[in-house]
Amino acid sequence: MPEFRRDPVIGRWVIISSERGKRPYDFISQPEEVKKAGCPFCGGFESKTPPEVFAYRDPGTDPNTEGWQVRVVENKFPALVNTGDADKNETGLYQSMNGIGAHEIFIETPEHAMEIDDLPVEHVGLIFKAYRERMLFNQEDPRLRYVLIFKNVGQKAGASLSHSHSQLVATPMIPKRIQEEMNGARDYFYKEHSCVFCDIVSRELEAKERVVWQTENFVAICPYASRFPFEMWVLPKYHSAHYYQSTDAQLAELGELCQYVLGKLSKALKKPQYNYMLHTAPVRYREEGYGNAVEKDFHWHLEIIPRLTHVAGFEWGTGFYINPTSPEMSAQFLRE
Amino acid sequence: MPEFRRDPVIGRWVIISSERGKRPYDFISQPEEVKKAGCPFCGGFESKTPPEVFAYRDPGTDPNTEGWQVRVVENKFPALVNTGDADKNETGLYQSMNGIGAHEIFIETPEHAMEIDDLPVEHVGLIFKAYRERMLFNQEDPRLRYVLIFKNVGQKAGASLSHSHSQLVATPMIPKRIQEEMNGARDYFYKEHSCVFCDIVSRELEAKERVVWQTENFVAICPYASRFPFEMWVLPKYHSAHYYQSTDAQLAELGELCQYVLGKLSKALKKPQYNYMLHTAPVRYREEGYGNAVEKDFHWHLEIIPRLTHVAGFEWGTGFYINPTSPEMSAQFLRE
Repeated sequence: MPEFRRDPVIGRWVIISSERGKRPYDFISQPEEVKKAGCPFCGGFESKTPPEVFAYRDPGTDPNTEGWQVRVVENKFPALVNTGDADKNETGLYQSMNGIGAHEIFIETPEHAMEIDDLPVEHVGLIFKAYRERMLFNQEDPRLRYVLIFKNVGQKAGASLSHSHSQLVATPMIPKRIQEEMNGARDYFYKEHSCVFCDIVSRELEAKERVVWQTENFVAICPYASRFPFEMWVLPKYHSAHYYQSTDAQLAELGELCQYVLGKLSKALKKPQYNYMLHTAPVRYREEGYGNAVEKDFHWHLEIIPRLTHVAGFEWGTGFYINPTSPEMSAQFLRE
Repeated sequence: MPEFRRDPVIGRWVIISSERGKRPYDFISQPEEVKKAGCPFCGGFESKTPPEVFAYRDPGTDPNTEGWQVRVVENKFPALVNTGDADKNETGLYQSMNGIGAHEIFIETPEHAMEIDDLPVEHVGLIFKAYRERMLFNQEDPRLRYVLIFKNVGQKAGASLSHSHSQLVATPMIPKRIQEEMNGARDYFYKEHSCVFCDIVSRELEAKERVVWQTENFVAICPYASRFPFEMWVLPKYHSAHYYQSTDAQLAELGELCQYVLGKLSKALKKPQYNYMLHTAPVRYREEGYGNAVEKDFHWHLEIIPRLTHVAGFEWGTGFYINPTSPEMSAQFLRE
């Protein structure tokens, strides 16, 4: 019997339909070809990218030369540009606005064919620290309202280069997806006087069946109303609305947990294509009419979605998802 | 300079980023292999599908035998099943519900390797009439709130069989995506005292630049805030909330227009993979707390989305879309 499940944050319904016959092994991927020749993200080819805006590098080395561990550059083909004003044009029915913002690339390692789960844990921690640094930098810009960090791995997941990297896009408005989460979290707080994400964490730690892994301060779960097979959320066990407020120690621990669970995913499904997206509270929510409550009811987290199924007419038409593998089964498979 | 554009219905922002270098010709697809052997949807193989629930067929022919033009059967692997009650289970934080509903397949022609745009216009009209008939049938079920019609063409678009077909899924709740549209249309009506879709139609017919084709009662446009290259919406020029209220003559004309614009898409991009989804008002909106206003402010339409770009971390994280081809350019390319 299939089952509808309601996401407790934004109210989105998902159909858990394990009967449709997809078992974890059905999703094991074929290896993707790794192209190395001419890769602009490799160490030694620093001149082939736009100039670096940030890096963790060996003492005494110069920007845009070798000797770095994590390097951040502007996107050569940015979706948004950082010059101009966020002017709105309204002509009756239609409204437009200049495409201002920021679009940066985190080159996660100078070595080709090394994914996050192949890197030493300390190195992964540096990537998560670099996210915080660029978030802090970009949220200084008064024109911007939100800084999104995400990662595309594999062509199907939207990556055009195979060298391990992630991205930052800063936008002059709060994303719809984040606004839905903020509204859902707010409604929950009014009703229950607690953070919905904190309540999810306690519930999951107690039930255990959807927990993939945990450290002292973080937990990775397959969420109750997972949209996709092997979808995972990584949440701090402590309450925090803003990723940028994380300490070095917390981010090192986050790196450790992510390296471990992405390694599990990679081993279980033979390097599947995936995306991850960091969900954190907006930086200028007061200007958007949100009060201080955001601090109390929002809770940052990382969403990891392997790209194993096709989003089709049903999902586009409804905003609902059909997930052929239950999160309990996904979590068990990843744990073992 | 890229540009943000706001969808006037649900408020979703899109970045029109023509500068990213994608031109219409970049999206031309490679032909997909057509597998015919063992296809259960071909004429003569009626016994290989679940029994038919509806068909347009030659006079004197029996159900589940040859002699049909359009044939509707239950999905062999349904996402939702039509037995049981829509019982909700609430255990504190989480809410679940039985996966009841309906899932039917419209086999659009007995001939393999014939797509909608290859069929005679009268035949396409029959497909659109079959949608109405199955909608009317399924909305009699008091447990159900919404009947979605959609079509997946090609593997990337989620189709598992290449024989031309579309689907019906009826759900016990109003889809999130439809609810967002209803809310957007309602807000617009309160402010402007008119239907937002009617206003879009007049505006587009006047501006002409985003119109792909029109007949007396229907128009196909590339919407102002298109999420994807070559996205098209087909709308009736007259106001109507409910697809099921369309007359035979209107649906014959809709078939004619769709056959034409899908043919244009097919020729322009060499049979790209695509989805289309019918957006119509819910059948039992009063039970969901909506009043009669739905009749005034909602307007049914068909959304066609070619699957040419990858939905990646940015789209998943924000609910926004990056579209590398402006709708003006898409419409022009399709017209010519």
